[in-house]
Amino acid sequence: MATLQDLGVSAAINISITFLFLIGFAFLKLQPVNDRVYYPKWYIKGLRKGGTKGDRRSLDKLVNLDYKQYLYFLDWMREALRMPESELIEHAGLDSAVYLRIYLLGLKIFLPLMILGFAVLVPVNVTDNYLVSSASQVISTNIDKISMANVKNGSQRLWVHLSMTYVFTAWTCFMLYIEYKTVAGMRFRFLATEHRRPDQFTVLVRQIPPDPDESISLHVEHFFRVNHPDYYLSHQVVYNANKLAKIVKKREAVQNWLDYSQLKYARNPSVRPTRRKGFCGLWGETVDAIDYHTAQIDQLTKEAAAERERVLGDEKAIMPVAFVSFRRRWGAAVCAQTQQSKNPTLWLTEWAPEPRDVYWYNLAIPYVELTIRKLLITGAVFALIFFFIIPVTFVQSLANLDGIEKKAKFLKPIIERHFIKSFLQGFLPGLALKLFLHFLPVILMIMSKIEGHVCLSMLERVTAVKYYYFMVVNVFFASVLTGAAFEQLNAFFHQAASQIPKTLGDAIPMKATFFITFIMVDGWSGIAGDILRLKPLIIYHLKNMFLVKTEKDRENAMSPGSAGFDTVFPQVLLYFLLGTVYAIITPFILPFIIIYFGFAYVSYRHQVINVYDPEYESGAAFWPQIHNRIIASLIFEQITLLGVFSSKKAADSTPFLIGLPVLTIAFHIYCRNRFEPAFVKYPLEEAMAKDTLDKATHPDLNIKRFLQNAYMHPVFKIEEDDEEGNYALDAPEDEPALVPTKPHSHGNTPVVSVHEGDSPASAHGSPTYASSGSLIHH
Amino acid sequence: MATLQDLGVSAAINISITFLFLIGFAFLKLQPVNDRVYYPKWYIKGLRKGGTKGDRRSLDKLVNLDYKQYLYFLDWMREALRMPESELIEHAGLDSAVYLRIYLLGLKIFLPLMILGFAVLVPVNVTDNYLVSSASQVISTNIDKISMANVKNGSQRLWVHLSMTYVFTAWTCFMLYIEYKTVAGMRFRFLATEHRRPDQFTVLVRQIPPDPDESISLHVEHFFRVNHPDYYLSHQVVYNANKLAKIVKKREAVQNWLDYSQLKYARNPSVRPTRRKGFCGLWGETVDAIDYHTAQIDQLTKEAAAERERVLGDEKAIMPVAFVSFRRRWGAAVCAQTQQSKNPTLWLTEWAPEPRDVYWYNLAIPYVELTIRKLLITGAVFALIFFFIIPVTFVQSLANLDGIEKKAKFLKPIIERHFIKSFLQGFLPGLALKLFLHFLPVILMIMSKIEGHVCLSMLERVTAVKYYYFMVVNVFFASVLTGAAFEQLNAFFHQAASQIPKTLGDAIPMKATFFITFIMVDGWSGIAGDILRLKPLIIYHLKNMFLVKTEKDRENAMSPGSAGFDTVFPQVLLYFLLGTVYAIITPFILPFIIIYFGFAYVSYRHQVINVYDPEYESGAAFWPQIHNRIIASLIFEQITLLGVFSSKKAADSTPFLIGLPVLTIAFHIYCRNRFEPAFVKYPLEEAMAKDTLDKATHPDLNIKRFLQNAYMHPVFKIEEDDEEGNYALDAPEDEPALVPTKPHSHGNTPVVSVHEGDSPASAHGSPTYASSGSLIHH
Repeated sequence: MATLQDLGVSAAINISITFLFLIGFAFLKLQPVNDRVYYPKWYIKGLRKGGTKGDRRSLDKLVNLDYKQYLYFLDWMREALRMPESELIEHAGLDSAVYLRIYLLGLKIFLPLMILGFAVLVPVNVTDNYLVSSASQVISTNIDKISMANVKNGSQRLWVHLSMTYVFTAWTCFMLYIEYKTVAGMRFRFLATEHRRPDQFTVLVRQIPPDPDESISLHVEHFFRVNHPDYYLSHQVVYNANKLAKIVKKREAVQNWLDYSQLKYARNPSVRPTRRKGFCGLWGETVDAIDYHTAQIDQLTKEAAAERERVLGDEKAIMPVAFVSFRRRWGAAVCAQTQQSKNPTLWLTEWAPEPRDVYWYNLAIPYVELTIRKLLITGAVFALIFFFIIPVTFVQSLANLDGIEKKAKFLKPIIERHFIKSFLQGFLPGLALKLFLHFLPVILMIMSKIEGHVCLSMLERVTAVKYYYFMVVNVFFASVLTGAAFEQLNAFFHQAASQIPKTLGDAIPMKATFFITFIMVDGWSGIAGDILRLKPLIIYHLKNMFLVKTEKDRENAMSPGSAGFDTVFPQVLLYFLLGTVYAIITPFILPFIIIYFGFAYVSYRHQVINVYDPEYESGAAFWPQIHNRIIASLIFEQITLLGVFSSKKAADSTPFLIGLPVLTIAFHIYCRNRFEPAFVKYPLEEAMAKDTLDKATHPDLNIKRFLQNAYMHPVFKIEEDDEEGNYALDAPEDEPALVPTKPHSHGNTPVVSVHEGDSPASAHGSPTYASSGSLIHH
Repeated sequence: MATLQDLGVSAAINISITFLFLIGFAFLKLQPVNDRVYYPKWYIKGLRKGGTKGDRRSLDKLVNLDYKQYLYFLDWMREALRMPESELIEHAGLDSAVYLRIYLLGLKIFLPLMILGFAVLVPVNVTDNYLVSSASQVISTNIDKISMANVKNGSQRLWVHLSMTYVFTAWTCFMLYIEYKTVAGMRFRFLATEHRRPDQFTVLVRQIPPDPDESISLHVEHFFRVNHPDYYLSHQVVYNANKLAKIVKKREAVQNWLDYSQLKYARNPSVRPTRRKGFCGLWGETVDAIDYHTAQIDQLTKEAAAERERVLGDEKAIMPVAFVSFRRRWGAAVCAQTQQSKNPTLWLTEWAPEPRDVYWYNLAIPYVELTIRKLLITGAVFALIFFFIIPVTFVQSLANLDGIEKKAKFLKPIIERHFIKSFLQGFLPGLALKLFLHFLPVILMIMSKIEGHVCLSMLERVTAVKYYYFMVVNVFFASVLTGAAFEQLNAFFHQAASQIPKTLGDAIPMKATFFITFIMVDGWSGIAGDILRLKPLIIYHLKNMFLVKTEKDRENAMSPGSAGFDTVFPQVLLYFLLGTVYAIITPFILPFIIIYFGFAYVSYRHQVINVYDPEYESGAAFWPQIHNRIIASLIFEQITLLGVFSSKKAADSTPFLIGLPVLTIAFHIYCRNRFEPAFVKYPLEEAMAKDTLDKATHPDLNIKRFLQNAYMHPVFKIEEDDEEGNYALDAPEDEPALVPTKPHSHGNTPVVSVHEGDSPASAHGSPTYASSGSLIHH
């Protein structure tokens, strides 16, 4: 077990690293040449304009020579806090603003608890002497002396801990309630003040049954014309353009190579660049690169055109899925919330996601497959969670240096050197874990995609759930219950239900110091590493050097990224779990967590303001998930405390703990009924109010025109741009994460004609492709 | 443990009792004087007309003298089976028809399984000799020799049982699927062909927020006029008439006494009947009964009128609940399925129950109370389930005669007499249990009422759930795991999860014979007792003797009752559980269960056709519950078999069992998605189709007139009848079970004026009571 000194060393290392990162960040972001890496948000908003490459001549455009600015290298923190929340919502969206509130919520919950803990619990713990009297049994550190471990068995002092647990639960629930209420209110205000958006009028319809007599498009129109006669406006069918998207993506890659070759040639016109024809240009016949790539692009463009023609002309390429739009929000709200068909597995309606939030690839999945996919992925995630543990546990065992020394005696002189020992014990386990976790989100996101969700926001949320479970099992439990961790699963099944709290109560208090180092490595240095943006910095400069030709290219090279809710939520929720579980047992952990929340709040506020460009806006739809996980942490804490109390043989006070989970669950049910529908449904009252306002302010609005191409597959839009001759680096189809394809950033040229509801005469045939590049109904 | 001989004695007793009951039934129902007890349904339908009291002179109106009819005393069975299902639905409603299908389903599932079991499993079991070889360890009976207990540990024969388990599960799931599909189809056809009913156009709105500026009625109208402008028609507010209902109920009781006294006087005009004034007429001043009761009734009528005026005039007597009607079914379907208000706990909408299905008393409960009530009742039911067990277990222990003999040696000579021993062991435990269970449904129904459900169908369904859990714990588990049963709950918590199947697998096979006797007592004799209708027979004749003055009185005295889903569902589901659990382990139990299902089907079909008069029609809304419980039984069986197999040390085959629960759960999820919405939601397609049909066939229908008084509290209707001078025995407010108050059976005199949607000018004040007996808005 790590001593206080180990902890000190670890803290020193981590604080140094953090400061190093911060200084690096401050230095790098002041250089004008990096401006697009550290302030991309402002470029996207069009509030900053950078110099083009031609301006490279003057040095001060590259390097900041104003030494004064370097003195205030932490000034960005003050800057980040300056923007008021309402402005932040307008600047970065509600998702980002509410995301930041999670860190604030951490501060609001744990700061008062820390003060209470140090004022009440620490004195109570430190004045007892259980650890001194039983020193032979338990190896203890100074930290344990101020923790609950130092209280004697059966001591009356445990009543203090009991009442503090109630205070803690009450305070946490109170803060959660306030926050849920605030966020729900913010969401309503946001949705109410929002501009007219296509998704407010549109419903995604899945499982359109095949009809032998008419095409899918016609079938949809007839169905909704009959069942929503007063509100149906138009619909857009969905084409299976996955192959086209693949071709377009490939062409983009070749385009990059072409750009690279052209740039190379421009810089050194004496030598025409060459490349080999084979795999990755590594072998095969040597050819002129520019000619080769140009030919390739021509070929792919032709392929794309042919494929496009095939998709648009082929009845079979139309998926049994459609975006159905209504005249008024009220009609869409009704359709999204009701069952349409007698067969409840047909004509399934749900709110359409924002156009930029749609994950087009998965719309082509047949609905029946979804259940099977869900089942398989659930199994796969379970396996991943419980067997990924093997390597993690191996690395964890490194922390147990005494064991290694015994087995490998020759290592003893090295390990026994004080500093190295502290370093190994304090730093390595956390770092190893962090590295392990680095590649996981990608795998989990792929799994979520296979599961078949149709919007990015949902994908991020379900990935976050998977990742959270992973973290809880593999970071929390694997660390708490040392030993091969899938054996723990086995042990769990072979253990009586009444035994589980005791096991937890025995194991969890022992691991406080480990989690403190974990917080410093994962939390503190991690955040500093995040704002340093080393990876985007390097990529940006590489792209700038080899690929950027036009201003638009440079804009695309910025890759501001987004907050990445799929990874940040599990992380922050893990800190909530740690804080909740240890708040009573080892209050000493709270300052570390509070520093994490505070630092994270400031840093990510800076990022949200200056860097991130969210791909979608879900209106804080993730909040119920955050809330529910914190409640689950609370209940877990209460079960753990049951175990701790019964280990302490506090027979008097233990029964009083049993009421807590019941109360917490009641609170949870109340909150769910009160607030959760606000995040799932769209009340008719609201829809009607917005409709009425719309009617009053824009009486002659042509809503059909507004919705016309809103739900067109982005790949058709790219093709359109291409045909207009301005083809460039643009959004690859299944990685919209990098460059969001917002509808407003593209022209409104009609590619797929909307099947209009007003003129039934116009919709009686399969769509055919006309040479003008648009679809016309005959 | 009971031997085969004990079982034979028990069977003989039960079969004798059953036949005795049947002969009694055949005899009684042939007497014309009992005609209204055994064929009330036909009287209610108006297809039979009985003689009045005056006709008593001729003997053959009282007693059936046609001896030939007595010869075919089982003829009613053939009669019962004759009516085709479509006619049955029309005759008794879909609920009853589908209820009978549950017994058929039992036959469909278990009959093939029994044949397979006796053809495959019994030969496999009986040719092994585990019990003979290990006779010293296990006390075995002949039944055990043909059960799985006779297979040697680790025998390869267990592969037969394993594959049979798969066959069994597959067959059960297949039948469940077919049945779910059929019932869902029946429900749709039923709803589609149904006549126009008020509940198709009406939505129950709860949690209407108070408004300082306007009355509830006005607030409702404004809200729906704004948010459903095209569909809102009218609404009816709900008055808190619980006190009025109490007064009316009391008056009915006094009316009965008055009728009794008047009849007594009529028969013996020389003596005026007297009674004492005090409690129950047992003490106090002696007064003339007729005068006394007449005065009482006058007093109560005045009280009722005053109370009625108070309720209708007092703004505070209007509950924040309303029945809102729409112009078209489509509008109601939309309103019932969508969220209305921004605050998801306000303006809650759900489909209105049928008028006769409304449980008015609970509409007055504030919505916030409901969560608390639910929590408290859940706790109370839990306590009831786990502590009611104490007396049951005590009686159960009687079956263990060997133990009693040891403790009370003097009883030995009596007990040891062969016949008495068999009787005690075979008959008593089942009977004792049955008696215990007799009074339970009433308690559970009261609990459900306290929970606050607002319709009778829902009340019966939630009571059925409570009762089922009770039966499973207190009949099934308490019998299987002998010993104090709440200790079992304790043991369960102190047992590893992996240990549970083993405990079950060890205990369950031992109890097959007990459940066979249980089936005979509870099932066979129980059904025969049910159709004998001894209790209604006695009550009818008592009423006829003392209270009946008019033909209408006699009609009210019939009390046909209903099937009582709250008690029959748990019973039949318990038989499904027994059949499922023992089908593989002890196939010998199946014939007994099949006889139960067959006999029950015929008997209850007779009852449904001739006796029961359902209080409501829910369109088989209970089916998902039946389906899900059978699925749960299947999973329970699979877990038990896991235990049995591992007890048998069948290490090869046990792992293959683990797939079964997974497959069953997948099947369950599939069925839930596919069929359950059909029982909960009302598809817009369907609503639109019926609306269109209505429009075509009745273009000039005045729907507002049709809905006018549909949702009036029945107590106002009684009062109305009373004022019209034809007051008599009528439906007491909170016992609509006895006499359903169908809207069509009462006049359409307007008592509560409908707040009409068309003329907003008419709805701007609180309702006042006018002398004409109707409410007028000023």
